[in-house]
Amino acid sequence: MLSFECDYNVGAHPALLARLAETNLIPAVGYGFDEFSDSAKAKIRAACADPAADVWFAVGGTQVNLLAISSMLRPFEGVVSAVTGHINGHEAGAIEYTGHKVLTLPHHDGKLRADELAAYLEGFFADKEGAPHMVQPGMVYITHPTEYGTLYTKKELAEIRAVCGRFSLPLYLDGARLGYARACPSSDVTLPDLAALTDAFTIGGTKCGALIGEALVFPRGKSPAAFFTQMKQRGAVLAKGRAVGVQFDALFTDGLYERIAAGAIEKAEKLRAAFLRLGYRLHIDAPTNQIFVVVSNERMEALAQSVRFTWWEKADEGHSVIRFVTSWATTDEIADELISLLESHGQAV
Amino acid sequence: MLSFECDYNVGAHPALLARLAETNLIPAVGYGFDEFSDSAKAKIRAACADPAADVWFAVGGTQVNLLAISSMLRPFEGVVSAVTGHINGHEAGAIEYTGHKVLTLPHHDGKLRADELAAYLEGFFADKEGAPHMVQPGMVYITHPTEYGTLYTKKELAEIRAVCGRFSLPLYLDGARLGYARACPSSDVTLPDLAALTDAFTIGGTKCGALIGEALVFPRGKSPAAFFTQMKQRGAVLAKGRAVGVQFDALFTDGLYERIAAGAIEKAEKLRAAFLRLGYRLHIDAPTNQIFVVVSNERMEALAQSVRFTWWEKADEGHSVIRFVTSWATTDEIADELISLLESHGQAV
Amino acid sequence: MLSFECDYNVGAHPALLARLAETNLIPAVGYGFDEFSDSAKAKIRAACADPAADVWFAVGGTQVNLLAISSMLRPFEGVVSAVTGHINGHEAGAIEYTGHKVLTLPHHDGKLRADELAAYLEGFFADKEGAPHMVQPGMVYITHPTEYGTLYTKKELAEIRAVCGRFSLPLYLDGARLGYARACPSSDVTLPDLAALTDAFTIGGTKCGALIGEALVFPRGKSPAAFFTQMKQRGAVLAKGRAVGVQFDALFTDGLYERIAAGAIEKAEKLRAAFLRLGYRLHIDAPTNQIFVVVSNERMEALAQSVRFTWWEKADEGHSVIRFVTSWATTDEIADELISLLESHGQAV
Amino acid sequence: MLSFECDYNVGAHPALLARLAETNLIPAVGYGFDEFSDSAKAKIRAACADPAADVWFAVGGTQVNLLAISSMLRPFEGVVSAVTGHINGHEAGAIEYTGHKVLTLPHHDGKLRADELAAYLEGFFADKEGAPHMVQPGMVYITHPTEYGTLYTKKELAEIRAVCGRFSLPLYLDGARLGYARACPSSDVTLPDLAALTDAFTIGGTKCGALIGEALVFPRGKSPAAFFTQMKQRGAVLAKGRAVGVQFDALFTDGLYERIAAGAIEKAEKLRAAFLRLGYRLHIDAPTNQIFVVVSNERMEALAQSVRFTWWEKADEGHSVIRFVTSWATTDEIADELISLLESHGQAV
Repeated sequence: MLSFECDYNVGAHPALLARLAETNLIPAVGYGFDEFSDSAKAKIRAACADPAADVWFAVGGTQVNLLAISSMLRPFEGVVSAVTGHINGHEAGAIEYTGHKVLTLPHHDGKLRADELAAYLEGFFADKEGAPHMVQPGMVYITHPTEYGTLYTKKELAEIRAVCGRFSLPLYLDGARLGYARACPSSDVTLPDLAALTDAFTIGGTKCGALIGEALVFPRGKSPAAFFTQMKQRGAVLAKGRAVGVQFDALFTDGLYERIAAGAIEKAEKLRAAFLRLGYRLHIDAPTNQIFVVVSNERMEALAQSVRFTWWEKADEGHSVIRFVTSWATTDEIADELISLLESHGQAV
Repeated sequence: MLSFECDYNVGAHPALLARLAETNLIPAVGYGFDEFSDSAKAKIRAACADPAADVWFAVGGTQVNLLAISSMLRPFEGVVSAVTGHINGHEAGAIEYTGHKVLTLPHHDGKLRADELAAYLEGFFADKEGAPHMVQPGMVYITHPTEYGTLYTKKELAEIRAVCGRFSLPLYLDGARLGYARACPSSDVTLPDLAALTDAFTIGGTKCGALIGEALVFPRGKSPAAFFTQMKQRGAVLAKGRAVGVQFDALFTDGLYERIAAGAIEKAEKLRAAFLRLGYRLHIDAPTNQIFVVVSNERMEALAQSVRFTWWEKADEGHSVIRFVTSWATTDEIADELISLLESHGQAV
Repeated sequence: MLSFECDYNVGAHPALLARLAETNLIPAVGYGFDEFSDSAKAKIRAACADPAADVWFAVGGTQVNLLAISSMLRPFEGVVSAVTGHINGHEAGAIEYTGHKVLTLPHHDGKLRADELAAYLEGFFADKEGAPHMVQPGMVYITHPTEYGTLYTKKELAEIRAVCGRFSLPLYLDGARLGYARACPSSDVTLPDLAALTDAFTIGGTKCGALIGEALVFPRGKSPAAFFTQMKQRGAVLAKGRAVGVQFDALFTDGLYERIAAGAIEKAEKLRAAFLRLGYRLHIDAPTNQIFVVVSNERMEALAQSVRFTWWEKADEGHSVIRFVTSWATTDEIADELISLLESHGQAV
Repeated sequence: MLSFECDYNVGAHPALLARLAETNLIPAVGYGFDEFSDSAKAKIRAACADPAADVWFAVGGTQVNLLAISSMLRPFEGVVSAVTGHINGHEAGAIEYTGHKVLTLPHHDGKLRADELAAYLEGFFADKEGAPHMVQPGMVYITHPTEYGTLYTKKELAEIRAVCGRFSLPLYLDGARLGYARACPSSDVTLPDLAALTDAFTIGGTKCGALIGEALVFPRGKSPAAFFTQMKQRGAVLAKGRAVGVQFDALFTDGLYERIAAGAIEKAEKLRAAFLRLGYRLHIDAPTNQIFVVVSNERMEALAQSVRFTWWEKADEGHSVIRFVTSWATTDEIADELISLLESHGQAV
């Protein structure tokens, strides 16, 4: 059975495991203040070209999102997100559990649009009488890549940033799959761009080669007050913080993070080409490691005999959108096997 | 420099790292529903002699405490704890952040006493007029080993259980260092006892050989409603749940968990004997892997040149209580080095 | 200046003030357990034909909504509401502050539709894999009258009730303006119907003749556990609970509640007829005490010189929707003054 | 039956009811922005000699405490209180429900001591390693009068203020019974003193002559951000804010607030003298309107046939502490009746 259902179905990139083994018996202080974490943070700061950046490590995506958002908002504020934002639908109400509303705007292939954001904020703050009875927008949340695998251009990010600036709202970018964004040849957004254009962003590890771990960057050293204590309070401090630090240290050594993501993008491109060649329609034209394909329900069932993928949504009565995902662990052999399998089923119907 | 400051200053027991490496590239489903986690859970259920037990994995101690407590309490309830309970002082208000008060009772070398618990609960529920204006005790929290390294006897646990039963309150036992309790020759409390006498308990991994991870057991299959979703909501679900599952699978294979803890207890006994032989006074007579010693402030400073320990509290103007901790990673060589060091300083002053 | 901007711009119906004065110096126990509150509760139970109903008093609408919802939901659940529901937009995130998400569905003139509710719930619970990662729908919230002044028919309520029953979800009805619903000749929904068809509902006092106060009814005695303590915990218990109890006792004596609401409905009908006669278009055809009228922006400004109303929303470039509200305090003289004023401006433009 | 069990067992001072009736039909804007509330706020600012003070009205004591505390703390902070503080024991966990821990210090007849506060804060902030794992003290809470009816002197308040200043912590004073403090001839603490020495304080209405209502003062205009929205979010905004505003306007007209409290103090003095004359022991020597008397259990039961009082705590096997409370509504006749009753029982036993 082939596995293309997600980018977190195997363990860590072998270089990370090796590094964990090498450092295993070296005593180190706890709670993330160890030398391995320090080294990883220094490398991330360098990669971001932001020597003053604060870097923290958390274990997972929902955790890092709730940490960032609940510590950046004041009690009466909510976070603005596209309706498709991961925090809005797929994190079990983690943000609301910390007391904050997710304020939704329409999405465009998973992306917020700067003009719509501006119109919403202008309307809200213009309503002097009504606004005090409502949740005040307190920050903006975007994902890159989005839930649909799409990417913001640097220009789009700069426009959103400008709107945030006009209303003094911090911008937070969820980069759970950031490696795959960085590795896209068509993307012009770099880590230094993110450090310049956001107030906080994450560099996803779990989906990009780590066993566990996400890095949370506050550019220019602007961590929320007592952030370590806030992490502890949400159960997010590891006694052995090194467990994540060592992995990020390896990921940011010799460009490993981007190199392994680039492999995943290559395989995704190859698969995308195969789908198109076989007459399938792509539901969304996205350049990263997720491929959303429209298939007939019969074909979907036939494929499911030999390959794992994710059902995404209904396309029409007879068709579904299904998702195939590549990762750093997808070899050429595995990708070719999937292509052969697809070819054996013939043209799309 | 010798390291005796805590039991989480190195990585994982090598057998766990080896198992992570072996299973690394086997595709598995996410979120803790993988085969490795399933296997670990089965082994834990067997060790607890409770085939119906629910077992969940979290990454750390504060996280697992807030998960268990916030999901077992109703909104108007608090958790009863000894004033020294870890949740009361050292978890940054994690319990209160979920909306619940910690209701404190006096401690006796870190332990709650069943008669004092009973007296408190009788008084509370007898006050028909006042009680509705107060936080209702909704569960009881104890630690084993306690923060002072002491242990409950089976009889003491049964007495606390009986009090909880009279008032229909669940009993939750925090076993962050449970391995070291199990390995004490003098302790008569087994895993099946814990499964029989509590409504929830943890089996600590982080301090007992794992890189990360705690197991949370709900005996007799009594998990709180939608517990997986509650974990997700608090940011405690790992996409690669296998990261903890594989480790617990190894820990519960061939008695590794208790075996490595027994090594730590042996070294602690040896050190305890050395301290006494050299005329030091033990602050608390505790049988587990933590040794609380009274030293003169001059001696404390002298020792600090060659060994890391933890300052615990002031004993009197000229003396301090300091803590030495052994772990699965403390070898005979390291223990002997510390003893030689102590001897080189001569008798206690 | 005429005042038609809301139904809470004057104090209490004089009969309530008189009753407060009469009972003022009679000593009574605190916290809502006084004889006046008891009498009021008995009358409400009788009016609902539900001798077992639990009745509680709170001071305001947002308070009673957050009390009911946060005590009826489990931590991992959210409340389903029309997107226009008062809790979703106009209560400053009070529900989220208690940790719960508002799950929105489309509205139809302010109302939820049973078939859309059923489709959503079916979809949610059918998605066995995805649902545990999402906020679980835990109850349904509707308003009657809605934010647009519209009313559910008994048949529509029964259909929503049936859907809730299929999925074991409680139904909560926010009756902040319930008096005006009851007083509509066209409405077939009675208090006994609400007691039979909902799991909780409110009888609004503040907008229907009281100085402060809302009654919260749990039919069939099904209050959430320790509800008094939960009220106290949210700051909603009054030391002098009599302050609300006395008022509801007066409102439910000799049919005062419905009688004074009927007066408001009569005036609203008269005004509605006048608007139509003068060629204005009603934005929504609603039978209660709120009238939503489309006016040209010039006319709006002209009217604003002599009468207070509420700007509601933009209709098109040149027109706005504005709202006029009658109440128990709107006399025939005041209504006639508004009609004269409207006539003096001539036909709608 | 005589009623001395509390100071909230009758309605409002008649002057307040009269003012509610006079203003009843005057239309006014909602949510506390009405002319009556404005007038009351101006009078309170004048009484505090703080023209820039922000004044807000809430309905009850628990509500105003949770509003002030939850809006003045950051998420990772707790509030320091004497263990006897009302927020710690008698508000059903309202503070914890907003996510914050109550950090307790010993009490001295209900009061915090500046030196003990300083020692705690010094210890906390000196522990650079441990502090980040603990709840950070974020503000200080005191009551005046305290739960035992005692009062701070101006010097004591200034000392606490100085400690708060050293650690940059705001000081909040709960004045639920402030009127009775102000009316004590022996007290040297004035409203301008409170405005100068605290960062927030309340002026209790419910226990001092109002039907409902507490005033919350932020001296020097230092309200927490978006405080109105935070009130709304906790369900604390009244649509008819005038209901409290009108009452405080009357209370602060012609010195009514202090005048009616002075009457209660006179009666309390008279009763205190009678108890002492009859040989009773006072549990606490407190100058305000609460009298804590030690009585034999037999006498307690005998008295309970004719007068309502509050059982406070057990004194010894045969004796109890019981509380008698006077209020603005205690007439000379009622006080004399109680004295006669006491005399009829003879000397204390």
